[in-house]
Amino acid sequence: MDHDGDNGDGDGQEFRRSRSHFTDRVTADGRDGWPVAAGRYRLVVSRACPWASRSLVSRRLLGLEEALPVAVADPIQDERSWRFTLDPDGRDPVLGIAFLAEAYRAREPGYDGGVSVPALVEAASGRLVTNDYQRLTLDLATEWRELHRPDAPDLYPEGRRDEIDERMEGIYQDINNGVYRAGFAKGQDAYDAAYARLFARLDQVSEHLADRRYLVGDTITEADIRLFTTLVRFDAVYHGHFKCNRNKLTEDRVLWAYARDLFQTPGFGDTVDFDHIKRHYYQVHADINPSRIVPRGPDLTGWRSPHHREQLGGRPFGDGTPPPPPPGDEVIQPL
Amino acid sequence: MDHDGDNGDGDGQEFRRSRSHFTDRVTADGRDGWPVAAGRYRLVVSRACPWASRSLVSRRLLGLEEALPVAVADPIQDERSWRFTLDPDGRDPVLGIAFLAEAYRAREPGYDGGVSVPALVEAASGRLVTNDYQRLTLDLATEWRELHRPDAPDLYPEGRRDEIDERMEGIYQDINNGVYRAGFAKGQDAYDAAYARLFARLDQVSEHLADRRYLVGDTITEADIRLFTTLVRFDAVYHGHFKCNRNKLTEDRVLWAYARDLFQTPGFGDTVDFDHIKRHYYQVHADINPSRIVPRGPDLTGWRSPHHREQLGGRPFGDGTPPPPPPGDEVIQPL
Repeated sequence: MDHDGDNGDGDGQEFRRSRSHFTDRVTADGRDGWPVAAGRYRLVVSRACPWASRSLVSRRLLGLEEALPVAVADPIQDERSWRFTLDPDGRDPVLGIAFLAEAYRAREPGYDGGVSVPALVEAASGRLVTNDYQRLTLDLATEWRELHRPDAPDLYPEGRRDEIDERMEGIYQDINNGVYRAGFAKGQDAYDAAYARLFARLDQVSEHLADRRYLVGDTITEADIRLFTTLVRFDAVYHGHFKCNRNKLTEDRVLWAYARDLFQTPGFGDTVDFDHIKRHYYQVHADINPSRIVPRGPDLTGWRSPHHREQLGGRPFGDGTPPPPPPGDEVIQPL
Repeated sequence: MDHDGDNGDGDGQEFRRSRSHFTDRVTADGRDGWPVAAGRYRLVVSRACPWASRSLVSRRLLGLEEALPVAVADPIQDERSWRFTLDPDGRDPVLGIAFLAEAYRAREPGYDGGVSVPALVEAASGRLVTNDYQRLTLDLATEWRELHRPDAPDLYPEGRRDEIDERMEGIYQDINNGVYRAGFAKGQDAYDAAYARLFARLDQVSEHLADRRYLVGDTITEADIRLFTTLVRFDAVYHGHFKCNRNKLTEDRVLWAYARDLFQTPGFGDTVDFDHIKRHYYQVHADINPSRIVPRGPDLTGWRSPHHREQLGGRPFGDGTPPPPPPGDEVIQPL
């Protein structure tokens, strides 16, 4: 993500998310010049970022950890954007670069636009392939099939795509991006409008999920991944920092149980780093939080509490199975 | 209150509350030259301010509305501090002044220190008498007795004063002022320390109140008033704006029921103006909230929900009675 960068040329108070700039696709047939291949690409993420975190969940569920290695950026950007300051000597050990922007410029010399995660980078050339976060996870689910683990779930089943796309569109506009429209609003009216749409949509989704375990069908799909990455950040950052404070997630019985259910499902909670999440939002957005102080709350221990959603039935992985635990070097400190 | 003004010369990150500057007392015997007398003084408040709101509650419980008329300042200060912009022509109709600072200067020519509420002003001379918020309500409860309504409660009973004082001291340091120390901290360490003390004290008070209806004895005292004026602001402003976000008040079963019990007691909730509270904090502290956007949340309707604290017994007004409804011109728009 690129919160503070090129947010479009909105004519007023409203926050506009910039479009992705590099939209090549990595496909099974390699028609854009980027064929799916094990070890050929590197997935650059920030664990703070909801858009990048979608790909972390997909990668785990589909068993792509070995085929698609990950590079984790420091949650704190500086004016040069995402940095590999968590790595030895401050450089990604494979790409050899200190800043993700270097991969953007390797792709397009002189590039000085926004630098966002998730980013797929070709390991050998160090060139950015795509930063199209909306497309990336759909391609992981479909184009990367030959590299999926055995018994990986189908996260974007053909017969359900219209329904999934429709659900995701409303969730994107009003929830995924809605929290940013509330938090980055420059005036009261723009904020009020975003807040109203956000909670109207959350109420609608909550009602939908009251007697259904997942958003579409009875299995986990891409739609659940996209809702999850916003919900898991809700109380930790959006509630306070972005003023999305009608109620906490924990106060919506249905959505809180739904989010805990997913959090406790292998491949979801094990990608979540609340420390990265909180430090990123509160320390990077100095225009919202000039002190850069990171709140100590909320108490997050409830994420591990029983959710009882299994009583709704559902087959989380459809005909597939849950993923094994994450590789040792990707294990995150537990809550 | 004077949030942004003369906060002392703290040597670092820690917020220091300035001491009151004018500490004359209005007493039954008039020993400081200010005898208790009906209609002689004007109580200047902001309904946003927890320190001033103590006096609003005391005044209601004791039935001092007629004897001690109130002037309500605009919740939004400008660089000249508290203003009477809610009044016709922007002037207090009795004092004839546009800014509370004028009463401070009538008392001390050339005064340019902090201007805080609550402030007692002599109506005829327009001179400030006292802005000593710690002393003011104790004097209303004791020195102003001859003007109390019949059957007014004893808010500072002689036999309980040591216990009340001790409770109030811990609550003042860690809760009343603790939320400000968290919110106005300039660095992470100072914030962390304030947060830890705040929630440790809230936990202690919550445990104390689990099987007791009120803080001291079985009746409402000054200690309850002082705890209430902070708790009633907790979820609306301190939780988000001041980062006091381990949990909302609504998530502490005991304190939430205790606060609702008081809120629903005549003289407490009928002094609370959530609109003034929210606008003040979010619009005045531009250093914490540069956008000055006021959050639409939280949902406050729960303040009217049943609290069941009457099951703990207690005699809210002791040998006295509840106050009648507020004067018509002091009625606040309900939630």
